[in-house]
Order: sequence, then structure tokens, then C-alpha cells
Amino acid sequence: MRTQYCGALNASFIDQEVTLCGWVDRRRDHGGVIFIDLRDRDGIVQVVFDPDAKENFETADKVRSEYVLQVKGRVRARSEATVNPNMPTGEVEVYGLEVTILNSAETTPFPLHDKTVGEEVRLKYRYVDLRRQEMQERLRFRSKVTNSIRNFLDDNGFLDIETPILTRATPEGARDYLVPSRTHEGKFFALPQSPQLFKQLLMVSGFDRYYQIAKCFRDEDLRADRQPEFTQIDIETSFMSDEQIMSVTEQMIRKLFSELKGVELGEFPRMPYAEAMQKYGSDKPDMRIPLELVEIKDLLADIDFKVFAGPANDPKCRVTALKVTGGAAISRKQIDDYTKYVGIYGAKGLAWIKVNEIEKGVEGLQSPIIKFLGDDVTMQVMERTGAQNGDIVFFGADTIKVVTEALGALRCKIGEDLELYTCEWAPLWVVDFPMFEAIEGGVTSLHHPFTAPSCSAQELEQNPLAALSQAYDMVLNGCELGGGSVRIHNQSMQQAVFRVLGIGEEEQREKFGFLLDALQYGAPPHGGLAFGLDRLIMLMTGASSIRDVIAFPKTQTAACVLTDAPGQVDNTQLRELNIRVKKKEVSA
Amino acid sequence: MRTQYCGALNASFIDQEVTLCGWVDRRRDHGGVIFIDLRDRDGIVQVVFDPDAKENFETADKVRSEYVLQVKGRVRARSEATVNPNMPTGEVEVYGLEVTILNSAETTPFPLHDKTVGEEVRLKYRYVDLRRQEMQERLRFRSKVTNSIRNFLDDNGFLDIETPILTRATPEGARDYLVPSRTHEGKFFALPQSPQLFKQLLMVSGFDRYYQIAKCFRDEDLRADRQPEFTQIDIETSFMSDEQIMSVTEQMIRKLFSELKGVELGEFPRMPYAEAMQKYGSDKPDMRIPLELVEIKDLLADIDFKVFAGPANDPKCRVTALKVTGGAAISRKQIDDYTKYVGIYGAKGLAWIKVNEIEKGVEGLQSPIIKFLGDDVTMQVMERTGAQNGDIVFFGADTIKVVTEALGALRCKIGEDLELYTCEWAPLWVVDFPMFEAIEGGVTSLHHPFTAPSCSAQELEQNPLAALSQAYDMVLNGCELGGGSVRIHNQSMQQAVFRVLGIGEEEQREKFGFLLDALQYGAPPHGGLAFGLDRLIMLMTGASSIRDVIAFPKTQTAACVLTDAPGQVDNTQLRELNIRVKKKEVSA
Repeated sequence: MRTQYCGALNASFIDQEVTLCGWVDRRRDHGGVIFIDLRDRDGIVQVVFDPDAKENFETADKVRSEYVLQVKGRVRARSEATVNPNMPTGEVEVYGLEVTILNSAETTPFPLHDKTVGEEVRLKYRYVDLRRQEMQERLRFRSKVTNSIRNFLDDNGFLDIETPILTRATPEGARDYLVPSRTHEGKFFALPQSPQLFKQLLMVSGFDRYYQIAKCFRDEDLRADRQPEFTQIDIETSFMSDEQIMSVTEQMIRKLFSELKGVELGEFPRMPYAEAMQKYGSDKPDMRIPLELVEIKDLLADIDFKVFAGPANDPKCRVTALKVTGGAAISRKQIDDYTKYVGIYGAKGLAWIKVNEIEKGVEGLQSPIIKFLGDDVTMQVMERTGAQNGDIVFFGADTIKVVTEALGALRCKIGEDLELYTCEWAPLWVVDFPMFEAIEGGVTSLHHPFTAPSCSAQELEQNPLAALSQAYDMVLNGCELGGGSVRIHNQSMQQAVFRVLGIGEEEQREKFGFLLDALQYGAPPHGGLAFGLDRLIMLMTGASSIRDVIAFPKTQTAACVLTDAPGQVDNTQLRELNIRVKKKEVSA
Repeated sequence: MRTQYCGALNASFIDQEVTLCGWVDRRRDHGGVIFIDLRDRDGIVQVVFDPDAKENFETADKVRSEYVLQVKGRVRARSEATVNPNMPTGEVEVYGLEVTILNSAETTPFPLHDKTVGEEVRLKYRYVDLRRQEMQERLRFRSKVTNSIRNFLDDNGFLDIETPILTRATPEGARDYLVPSRTHEGKFFALPQSPQLFKQLLMVSGFDRYYQIAKCFRDEDLRADRQPEFTQIDIETSFMSDEQIMSVTEQMIRKLFSELKGVELGEFPRMPYAEAMQKYGSDKPDMRIPLELVEIKDLLADIDFKVFAGPANDPKCRVTALKVTGGAAISRKQIDDYTKYVGIYGAKGLAWIKVNEIEKGVEGLQSPIIKFLGDDVTMQVMERTGAQNGDIVFFGADTIKVVTEALGALRCKIGEDLELYTCEWAPLWVVDFPMFEAIEGGVTSLHHPFTAPSCSAQELEQNPLAALSQAYDMVLNGCELGGGSVRIHNQSMQQAVFRVLGIGEEEQREKFGFLLDALQYGAPPHGGLAFGLDRLIMLMTGASSIRDVIAFPKTQTAACVLTDAPGQVDNTQLRELNIRVKKKEVSA
């Protein structure tokens, strides 16, 4: 039906007759001539109909925005005065000979070029929204990304193997989506939170290198960057060390950035988890920001001021300074905003010292807290943070958790606000995670219970909270791109971990019996990784929401406003499934 | 951890030191020497440990089948007497220097080389079953197929776009799997039976060429070749005619067979649906079989024998002969079996005439029915079917449906039993399907209600059962590989089809409102196709069940015996979802 895409036309086509198909992006009359900007997937070209085109001119006169046309015409150079350098096809136009209206269009619910349209309307008429150049480019880019990744993995001997969507409740810890079974009364499938156990079983089967671009599901209350269904680049290998797994997946991401962004990321540095939390207050530090947290607990232990001295003398607490180069320019109003901001993380205040003339000692500083710290301690803090004229130093003194999270978040916020970024892309690996973290009444896995520890089973059981794991997270610009680990391939180690987690033998059999069985029939050493594809695309395209890189996303209440899902189902269906919807309880 | 795959070793490695990882396929002592067949994804190689290897010899002595080992050794040529031509690595062996047991293994639930193991056990211990060479090869082949298909589609400008799994009930007609929504009380998502409407919306969005290797779901009672979740190669294009869509997808399949099977399929013939049903009794004729159904209704209209004369005079009936070349050798016992076989399709019997000496006229024939047909009619039938000495002619006389299905199935059965295949691969396109078929109280879509007719909306509504569609099925060796159609891109045509189907305006809005809306905002002409990936792999690998080309399939009761899914869920989860399981009703 066409000979070229609209966007493909350029001077090399001059004098050729072409047939185009596409949408009317804009139509206007000018001096008795009709100009139609015809749009397709590749771009936009101007088509001109003058009255010589007779009945085709009349047809062209009738078309409106978003009509679907087939146009035959001859490509010609635009006059110098009308060349449009902002348009890739702007050197040429098509002199229209014939036009066929393939479909008419009502006025769209919102104008395509209006950038202020609310998301609800965009999602309800997603098929119109997706016509916008930005959305076209993002989904096209997404297709290129999966293609590049698949090619890399295929070239490296990874097999694409599908794992089930209708499966058993998985132990990732989030809430499962359930699917009632019709043939097994009262029983339910769960949609997978990840293919974790299946990919491990594939290693036990000897497939050696597996990948899948897999749909995963979590029934969680949605934050801005979450979706109930999301896509994971899922990878597992046998007989490879953590370093080898990191190396091959790092190559994959490097190739991706090189091919599709023209960016050479270089070797990714490795940073232990402990250092990341200490210096950057985050297990996914944004290394574009040249700010570090500095420990000052020892300096403040002997002062009278309880707000600092209390935490400084409490082993569960942390006292930390964050020096911001050039931060003395931050206004009182801004400091108030930052104080509220760290409040989200539980910080009860945000003390600060501005440095005006450090050569004058405390006289050259400006702060409401110097009198509480005392001159000596103040100057010791200045020295340790290396504060110079024009800087500001912020303080955190509270539980380890509060200080780490609050100052870690403040570091990122200030980095963004003051545009302190030293580079565009800052990838790294965070390694040496703890196996477990303490929760009320016990411990929980920091990653998942199949992660291999770096120590023996005996050491693990003796001091679980001291044990490190063979896990690794790939972090880019403060976002976790992916994470993985070497897995446990030994039944007794797996059971030791279950015991530490308080999972008794009966529950082990009931929930993980098939895994424990598999581990005893010749399981190889194995490990892997999973990348969040949506997040990766979002970062690479600079989109501000994950919903902008998914063709048909759900809203924050996990609904599809386009198709009106979830929807009512009739009672016959529910009867077949042997379930009923509970009537609303009337509260007294 | 290794330098080579076991299966990669050959004479070019002689004298090299290699490190291998893998499973003990077999271990045996012979003359004080230990022979280990070490297996990995790539193949098997023989490793030899003699007592000179000292403690490594002792370790090697301890290993048992399916132990996981790391072996260091030197590749050496086998002596001429011990070369194993049946093994790709059979020219060499590895002289073992070091061995590490990476994991031990209990005796597997069934021996890997036992081909008689029941499917239930194979599925329960799928991770062991998948170690078998056959299963390894099938899943590896599957990965190659998806890779080849993706490359073809990427090269041809198709974009890989994901559509939702949590969605609205789709109108494909099968039963949906439902997912209760937690955030929208009493409402349910449905898992997609196909991405049909989403891919049409992507065309309305202007993506022009879409593909996805998509999981689809149908909660149906399972036949041997069905699974509750299955995988579809899903394709949709804009501005292409049915012929162009067939052409590009045919190229894709031809390339696939050429690359992965070394088979050149050539151009696929096109056959109208009416001809397929008439001559082959099937809308997916197996063209490897050189047998055709021959109409003889006119010949039998005037005979006295009611069994034939009745149908011959009834416009709802069909009277048909199937000549089988060389079929006179079929025994009475076999004829009885075939009679039972056609009974499955509703045929009340299976008349036949064997041709011994056609030159003697009816004297040269053998049959219980000649006396009922009469000599003249018998010989007319012989003439029309072209029966020769050594042939058999079967008869079908019943409703059109029964005769078509029964003789169509018999044709395939006999083709297989007598090995009549004239070629290995016989692809074709079946085209010109009817839009609708009659059902009690109305009509139903032969494909789906979004299929474009070949006629106007007016003609369609006047005589729905006469209308043909722009649908096409790709058939290979009697299996439907894929099917598709040009879709309706015009709102009023879509509404006409809904009216013919008895879907009133209210139901149209309620179920398909978003599609009808989309069609009025500039929908391009579009169409597409979907291939059943599992079936395709099954045909290409010669597997006898679809379960043999899926890593973790469900059983015929839609259960996973490996993970024991579906499973019980606790009441907290159900409460959150606002549903309850109905108690079993006690029948009186």
C-alpha cells in the first residue's frame, strides 16, 4: 500500500513518485493550496495539494487531523525560503497527485501536541497517547534494548527458556496474585514474583546458561515507580563465580549503552555494602554526586548538648556530617525545606553550619549550634569534613537507620537541586551484603533465602547477622538496575538458612520440598541475576515514570482505565471456580 | 571453573590440559582403572583415572551417577581399538589429573537412560528428566527457533512490544483464567487468551509493525496437545493486504526451516476453505497424503438402498468416496477398526469396495454393498474415483458435517498407517473462510469478531452465512501452525458484525467500547497473524506431545506435579481479596 515511510524521505528521492500511508498530523490552507503534514512511524513529511489535483484537491480539502490517508505524489525540493531545518524531511515535500481517505477520525479526546494533558486521560485513550513522538520513541527504544540484550545473551551461549506463569506461591515476600483453579476445587495458582526457583531447577537440569525476558507480578500498594506486572531480564548460570557472573552481565550493559546511547561506561567499580551505607547512606549510591557522609561520633561524645551527645554515646546510633561544597548559598527557606525532607526519614531536625571565612575560626562560621558544640569541637568537625569558605555542613544524630537514610536521601536531593553531578552515568556494583537483617522476633533475608553465604553453615548459624552473602547489585545513578547472587547448591546449607529464618522442617518440606529434593540429585554450583527492564528503559530514555515506558500500564490503584480492568464477572464463572465474592460487611 | 565444554573436545585438543565441569553420566571400573563419562550441556566425554592419580583416583572411585564434578586432565587420543565412532568426542579421552566433587547425588528417582519411565514421574522430577539428551536438544532447539524468528522480525522492522497479562476478559470464546483484584473489591482481572485487542490498538497508535512472543491462557479441559498456558508468536501490521501479510510470515517460516532444519519449503500453495473441506475433509489438510474425497451424491440419488439414497437426496447431506491406492490389502480386522474410528466422528458405518480385477467389472470387485448399489452405479463410482486393481474405496453418507469430519480423519489415519506420505513437509495456506458458521439460535464467528469480511456491511447483514472473511490459516502436515486475518478498521463494519452475532448496542459498549472508540479516532487498515509456538516446535522436533517441548508443563488436569500447583492458600490471603471458597455442597 506504500512505497516509503513518510519519515524516510529526503533529497535523494527528488523527482521520484512515492506512495505514502499515514495520519494527518496537521492540515492547513495557504493561498489556495492545502498543506498536509503526513505522519507515520518514521516521521512526518509535508504533502501539498493544489487545485490542479482536481477531485484529489477536494478530497484533501475534506481531511482533518488524524484522518488516515494514502497519498501518491512526487517528491520535490522545497524552495530555499520554505526549507524546514527542524524537520528531518524538511528539505523536501511531496507534490500530491492522488489521495485516498482510508479512515476518517473524530476530534481526538486531547490534542496530540498538548504536553499538559493529565495522565488519566492519556491512559484512557492510550492508543491516541501512544501516537505522540515521545511515546513512539520510547517503545521503539525498548524494543531495541530487548533486541540488543537477547543478541548478546544468544551470542554468549544463553538459552531462552520459558518458565510458567501459572505456578505456586513464590517466597519473594511480596503479596502474590492468585488464580483460582477450576479443576482443583478450592486451590489456587499464584503468578510468579520471579522465575527464581524454576531458573535454579534449570541449572540442576544442566542447561548451564539460561535467560528469559520474563513477566513478574507483585500485588503491592503501588509507588510511583512500581507496576503490578513488570518485566525482568532474568539470567542464571552454572559453574561460574560471582566475579564471572558480574563480568558477563556488566559486559551486556556496557554493550547496550555503547550501541544504543553511544556511551562507554567503562569498568564498573565494586563497593562493599558497608562502605555504601557508611559513605553514601544508601545501598544504591548515586555516584554522580561528589558528596560523602563523614563520621563525627567520636568528636561529639563529650559535649554537653544531649541532642548530639546522646546518640554519640549510644552504640545503636550514628552521628554524621555532610559537607556540601558551595552550599553556603542555600537559603534559610531551603534549609527549612530540607529539614522537612529529612523528617520523612524520621530525623527530628537538621543542624547546619555555614562557612563564611574559615580563616577566622568559629567567628567565620554561621550556625545556631556552635554554642552547643563549643568552639573546639566545631573546629574539629570543620577540619574532618574539610569544609572551606562557601560550604555548608549538615548534621545527623539519631539511630543508625534514621541517620543513614535521612542523610543518604539529603545527599541525593541536594545533589539534584544544586546540580552537582560530575558525570552523566555512574554505574557500580555493590557487593558483600549481609545475609540477613534483624526484624522483630528474628531475622529476614536481605535478598532471598536461596542466596549463598560467604561463610560455612556452622558460622552462619552461630552468628547470622555477621554473615555476608555472595550477592551483588548493579547500581546506576542511584537506581538498582539489577541484583543477583551465587545460590545455595547444597541441601544442608539450604536447610541451615531455613533454620536461621525460623522455617521449621515441616514448612520447609511443604513450601520448598521440590527445591530440597532437587539439591540432592546433583545440583551444580550456580548463580545469576535479574535486571528490572522497565527501570532500565526509564533510566535510558530519561522518562520520569515507569508508566511512560510501558505500552499499557496500570494506574496507581492497579487498574487499566483503557479496558476498564479489573471488571465484574458473572456468577456462572465464579460458580465454576467454586468461589464467591464476600458481601460487604456493614460496620456498626 | 572450566576451560571447555565436555562435548566440545575432539582431536584438535590432544595434549592440551583442560578443566571440565559436569555430571557423571556413567562410571565404571575396568582393569583397575576408573572410566567416567562426564556430561554437560554440550555432550559427553570419557575421563580416565588410573592409580597414578593417587588421592584423585580415590576420589574418582567414590563418585556415583549424577555426581557433579570438576575435572582437570589432559586430552589424549584413544587407541584405535577403543575409538567410539558413536560419540562425537569418541576419538579422544581425558586423562584425569585432578577431580573435585562439587556436589554428590542420591540415586535419581529414575535412570536417565530409561525410556519407559511414566510421564507422571518424569514431570514430578522434571529437573532430572530435563537432563536427558532428547529434552536438552528440544529446549535448545526451541531457543534457536525464537531467536531466528525474532531476528527475522527485527530485520523486517517489527517492534517487540509487551501487552498486559493482567487484563480484561477477552472475547476469544474460551474460558478465562481470573485473578481477583485486592484493590478493587469484587472485581477480577482475566489472563489474556491472546493479545488480540491490544495489538489492534497498537496499530491504531501507529506502531505499524508489531510482534511479541506472548504467553496466552485458556482454562479449557485439556486435550493431548493443549496447555492452560501456551506461547504465541503474535504479529500485527498496518497498511498491508492479506497477501502481503501471508507473504512476510511465510518468508519467516521458510527461513526458519531453512536455517534450523536445512529444509527448503518453497512457495506455499493457497487453497480455499471450501476446497479443503470438499477434497480433504478438513480445514487443515495434510497434503503429504495423496488421497482425496470424491463426491458421488449424484450417482447414488436413484438407488433403492436408503442408507445411501437418503443422504444423496438430502441437501444437508454429503455422499463421498475415498479411494485408497493399494488399500485392497487392508484386512477385515483393520476395516473394523476404521469403522470404529469413523464412529468417533458420528459415522454409523463404513462401506467399502475392494478392487481385485477391475477389467472383470463388478465380478472383479469384493464388497458387501455392491448388491445394494447395483452393478451400473458401482461401476460409475469406480470410474469416478479412478479405482485400479489393488485399491479400496470407502464410502461416507451422512450429514455434511459427519461425512466431512469422518472421511477427513480416515484419510489422515490411513495415510499414516499405510505410510502414504509423498513428502516430509507439506505447508499451505487455507484462505476464503466463511465469516460465520451456524449454531443453534444464530451464528458464531469462525475466527473472531474482529475479522474483516470480503464483502460490504450490507451484504454481510443480508446473508451472513454466505459471507467470506479475509482470514488465512497456515497449515503444515495437517496441523494449523498459525492463523490470522485482515481486521475490521471501520467502526460501522465492526458494529454490523456485532449485530450479526446478536451482540446488542449495550453489550457492545460494555465489552468493546474501547475498541469501538479507537476505531473512530483514525484506525489504519491492519491485520496480522499468530503462530502457536509450542505446536511449531513439536512439529519441528518430532516430539509426540506438546509437553515434551515445554520446560515445566502442566498435566492434563492442569496441575504442576513438580511444585504441587495449584495449592492451598491461607484465609488471610482470601480475606484480603474479599473472596471465599464455597463449601462443598452435600448432595442428597
